[in-house]
Amino acid sequence: MENDLRSESRVGRFYGVGVGPGDPELLTLKGARVLRECSVVVVPKKGSHDASYAYSIVRDLIDTGRQELLDLVFPMKKDLDQLVSYWEEAVDEIHRRLIDGKDCVFLTEGDPFFYGTFIYIYRILRERHPEVEMEVVPGVTSLNASAARSCLPLVNGDDRLAVLPATYEGESLRKALQEFDAVVLLKVNSVFDKVLDLLEELGLAEKAVFVKKCTAHDEEIVRDVRSLRGKKLDYLSLLIVRK
Amino acid sequence: MENDLRSESRVGRFYGVGVGPGDPELLTLKGARVLRECSVVVVPKKGSHDASYAYSIVRDLIDTGRQELLDLVFPMKKDLDQLVSYWEEAVDEIHRRLIDGKDCVFLTEGDPFFYGTFIYIYRILRERHPEVEMEVVPGVTSLNASAARSCLPLVNGDDRLAVLPATYEGESLRKALQEFDAVVLLKVNSVFDKVLDLLEELGLAEKAVFVKKCTAHDEEIVRDVRSLRGKKLDYLSLLIVRK
Repeated sequence: MENDLRSESRVGRFYGVGVGPGDPELLTLKGARVLRECSVVVVPKKGSHDASYAYSIVRDLIDTGRQELLDLVFPMKKDLDQLVSYWEEAVDEIHRRLIDGKDCVFLTEGDPFFYGTFIYIYRILRERHPEVEMEVVPGVTSLNASAARSCLPLVNGDDRLAVLPATYEGESLRKALQEFDAVVLLKVNSVFDKVLDLLEELGLAEKAVFVKKCTAHDEEIVRDVRSLRGKKLDYLSLLIVRK
Repeated sequence: MENDLRSESRVGRFYGVGVGPGDPELLTLKGARVLRECSVVVVPKKGSHDASYAYSIVRDLIDTGRQELLDLVFPMKKDLDQLVSYWEEAVDEIHRRLIDGKDCVFLTEGDPFFYGTFIYIYRILRERHPEVEMEVVPGVTSLNASAARSCLPLVNGDDRLAVLPATYEGESLRKALQEFDAVVLLKVNSVFDKVLDLLEELGLAEKAVFVKKCTAHDEEIVRDVRSLRGKKLDYLSLLIVRK
């Protein structure tokens, strides 16, 4: 594949493409074009036997007869040294294809620079191989898509927005809920009951909407967030608190 | 136009479509489809002689022979009563077409529920005409696009993000800059010098990037934000402060 380009000894371009929150139609026109044009599609996975959510969104656009799928495993580990070794190995795999003249596109759900594994790969690649041209194609985030799907105008006028991942201290979450007009809690599944306690205490439980896998075929929108107490929740879920 | 649908006496659907930050290719596939399918395209403008930025992004997709362009003026006024009268008049104009069976799409730069005039129209229409089916098609925000274009990974891991419009008190801005890993200041043009003073005081001036009309043909990215002191800045500009 791509042998006709080799003679130019051109280094391939590296793209990070945000494929959006779940609905294949929420990919951008540019994302769709870049996906078609690259000869290598990098597919991040949590485990070697897991399916990739990002890939599931764009699978119909990819021609596996013409394009290489490069599966890369990024386990959900807490140990930073171990994670770094996975990232570095991933960068080596990608770089081998780039110096072969192949354009590579790394798939990320949502937006590449918005809580994506892509960020780590981008940083290591830029540091080790600064000669590689990189481009990030932004995408629709689950944040914006969740507001749209739950009919909840997120911010307007002078409103202030805070976005927090789930690993916050109780006190900083309390302050954000008190001081901001809209607060979005990402990856809320692991701490949901504690968050609900705080919402009850602040009188905000009725201002919250829970959204799971926004715009995907198995999307769930729950307005009575109290009904979720004690339940096992999906990793791809968030909570919007709109005062 | 659309007379063939009248006999069903179907009420048209109302769409809000986020057309993205400026590059026409950053529209979503769904946004492009909805734009083609609607017989009325609602174009918000600041003044009757002004061009619409959102329209300029998608003009090549619109067939003015087949689709009606409905220009609506939303002046930049501070007086709420006056603004409400503009919004209500706009809702009347749109509703007249909806009851005529015409699907209408309201263009918004970025995302419809992220600081858009669309929010006011949506709320009034929902209140007055709850029978109208509405759908919001989310878009790529200038926030995500600016991070992509300025090669600045916005948030990852446990990072916390605050988004503030420019009309904040000094103290709340100071707190946000101290407590959050990334702060995005929208519409920063009117208060830029004051913000710069605060960034200098907090030692953050070198962590800031200024982005004007992100991904548009006249985009500007300024990393030496000190060079902007005293200058007249564009309304469609923002500042990312990334610690």
